[in-house]
Amino acid sequence: MDVKKYMLDLGQKARAASRAMARADSLAKNTALLAIADSIEEKKPDLIAANKKDLKQGADLEPAMRDRLELNDARIAAMADGLRQVAGLADPVGEITDLRYRPSGIQVGKMRVPLGVVGIIYESRPNVTADAAALALKSGNATILRGGSEAIHSNQAIAGCVREGLKKAGLPEAAVQVIETTDRTAVGELLAMQEFVDVIIPRGGKGLIERISREATMPVIKHLDGICHVYVDEQADLDKAIRIAFNAKTHRYGVCNAMETLLLAESIAEVVLDVLVPMYQEKGVELRGCAATRAIVPEIAEATEEDWHTEYLAPILSIRIVQGVEEAIDHINRYSSQHTDTIVTEDYSIARRFLREVDSSSVMVNASTRFADGYEYGLGAEIGISTDKFHARGPVGLEGLTSQKFIVLGDGQIRE
Amino acid sequence: MDVKKYMLDLGQKARAASRAMARADSLAKNTALLAIADSIEEKKPDLIAANKKDLKQGADLEPAMRDRLELNDARIAAMADGLRQVAGLADPVGEITDLRYRPSGIQVGKMRVPLGVVGIIYESRPNVTADAAALALKSGNATILRGGSEAIHSNQAIAGCVREGLKKAGLPEAAVQVIETTDRTAVGELLAMQEFVDVIIPRGGKGLIERISREATMPVIKHLDGICHVYVDEQADLDKAIRIAFNAKTHRYGVCNAMETLLLAESIAEVVLDVLVPMYQEKGVELRGCAATRAIVPEIAEATEEDWHTEYLAPILSIRIVQGVEEAIDHINRYSSQHTDTIVTEDYSIARRFLREVDSSSVMVNASTRFADGYEYGLGAEIGISTDKFHARGPVGLEGLTSQKFIVLGDGQIRE
Repeated sequence: MDVKKYMLDLGQKARAASRAMARADSLAKNTALLAIADSIEEKKPDLIAANKKDLKQGADLEPAMRDRLELNDARIAAMADGLRQVAGLADPVGEITDLRYRPSGIQVGKMRVPLGVVGIIYESRPNVTADAAALALKSGNATILRGGSEAIHSNQAIAGCVREGLKKAGLPEAAVQVIETTDRTAVGELLAMQEFVDVIIPRGGKGLIERISREATMPVIKHLDGICHVYVDEQADLDKAIRIAFNAKTHRYGVCNAMETLLLAESIAEVVLDVLVPMYQEKGVELRGCAATRAIVPEIAEATEEDWHTEYLAPILSIRIVQGVEEAIDHINRYSSQHTDTIVTEDYSIARRFLREVDSSSVMVNASTRFADGYEYGLGAEIGISTDKFHARGPVGLEGLTSQKFIVLGDGQIRE
Repeated sequence: MDVKKYMLDLGQKARAASRAMARADSLAKNTALLAIADSIEEKKPDLIAANKKDLKQGADLEPAMRDRLELNDARIAAMADGLRQVAGLADPVGEITDLRYRPSGIQVGKMRVPLGVVGIIYESRPNVTADAAALALKSGNATILRGGSEAIHSNQAIAGCVREGLKKAGLPEAAVQVIETTDRTAVGELLAMQEFVDVIIPRGGKGLIERISREATMPVIKHLDGICHVYVDEQADLDKAIRIAFNAKTHRYGVCNAMETLLLAESIAEVVLDVLVPMYQEKGVELRGCAATRAIVPEIAEATEEDWHTEYLAPILSIRIVQGVEEAIDHINRYSSQHTDTIVTEDYSIARRFLREVDSSSVMVNASTRFADGYEYGLGAEIGISTDKFHARGPVGLEGLTSQKFIVLGDGQIRE
């Protein structure tokens, strides 16, 4: 197979399809989404059979990866359900805002438009094929999907359902293309096709994301670490503080919006640690503390400079005692990955300052970092969480796959 | 001079200053802008003297470039005026929108925040130093400015005024840094400082912009060509059509929002050309036409494939006759630089279709392409016009120098 030629052809088809998708009305897009959902349910035996092939070939994979790879009844139902949910979301394309008359007599406003062609590169979970296709489709984009080679049969089976749904709705089948080759050079070709791909969204481990950011010739919506903080202020309601600090660390460990560092105002540190330390210890959370923390809880390990920089994704927590909000903000703006950071306080001015000065994609007051999520934020769905500052920050939903052009309505106005 | 070390120092100072700028309240920023304006007026003799040095060293420059380089009373007054206007604009930083309660009880909204450190690279006009500093300052960013080496004395003199104003307002002087060396490697260093510079905005010729886009390791807000179209539809009001087509081409030739290609529906082509051709010819506009155009106006030259791709920036116009709106949209989406395109029509459905389907940063109905401009759009000022699709499209004002983070307000909510 001539991978270069194959990818070029994919790119050209995607660009052509993107024009049709930008024009497509909401009814056609929703019809396609519902038809894909139906097709996924009807073809369940085929999907399971294709997935069995992947699981057989992936017999040597780590258990966690094999688990992510597996399709079962519940996961297939969840895929179909996700597609129907996206069909129910408002269509972002064509939304006109801020349309105002100017002194010249023209009206100037903004219209929301698709980005064009979205490339999405992901790892083992085959459900991403359906989820990503749904979001790209609804937001009027064409998409080129590249899943993990270990999921190739599952992904191609899902791709067949997607094509069937697009066809039923009269939309171009090339609106969603799943790369058929597992040849690794295909990714390099995709990242070089500036002319045909408007944005790349990598979903996966840090290595994948770093490689893609380095090589891509087009913008990348990327999500690197989630080093999230909870700061318990002197003026915190301590019940809330303990509830939030416990939930943010222990609700799930392997997720990007889990807390990795707990910051405590020195005046309340001892009373908070007295309650929290046994709770964490009972849960099996390993604690590492700064010198001041260890003066209160001498049995825990010392947190090193490296700890403040680390996304554990594990039952480990670093704890630091700070003088107050100023030092907390300094620590966060230095070590945070600009993902999600929370303050617990009842003080109005301190809360206001934290919200303004913490430079992260989600900044919270009195809520668990675990809320940083497209569904919890009401975006309806999420293609990823951006820790960049440009274009989209935080959970990226349909809107993040669009931008705004200016529109001008006149009656024959000219510049004098 | 160790350029690498110098630039690294600049970058570190800019990053530190950006934190103070993000916190700075509107009063401090406006105080600085007004103080800079005053300082520019007070230091007028110094600015003129510095500019004389540049003009003397640039004795060999082309007349147009020398003209752009020159500072005189009117231009200095315009700079001060521009600063005062920016002081009068609403502060975009901290604006909270879409704050809504979610079923979990948390409130989720967005807060507008500065991008951080903005690098701006421009050519001869020294007034850009003041304009760009003003916009970056008002939007809460720190900025590193790199002007043309031919304007180094003028730019340093203006930089002195900017520092004085910042100091008076109690803001860090490093919030606006103008690179002091004319060493060309400084640009390469700037473009490599991903850690300290969040976005690069090049202002200048195509060569500069292409080089910067290629080398920059951070996002670039760029403006390449302005190949703008006017399409006169079958249903056009012909008076409006003629007025707009004439204005879009002849109001100014060397600007990016001037029309370069006129598209005419075949049914009205002859009657429009009968009026427009003599008007253009009287103005000295060279016309180049497709075969159908030349069948009506045989004396004009033939437009080649290259013409449709060319931004003339000169009194030259290519003309093509199309069957109707469908072919016009196809032509535009193929050849336009996605800057600004206009339809002239009285037909509601055709206008609606053109607005939706033309994939350009500004799409207009019955208005001259010359309106594509930050001031005309009510942005108050403009740092450039983006022909990209990502982050910002069209004229970029204060808002384009910001992005939005999510904020979450709770009462102790946790994820269950």
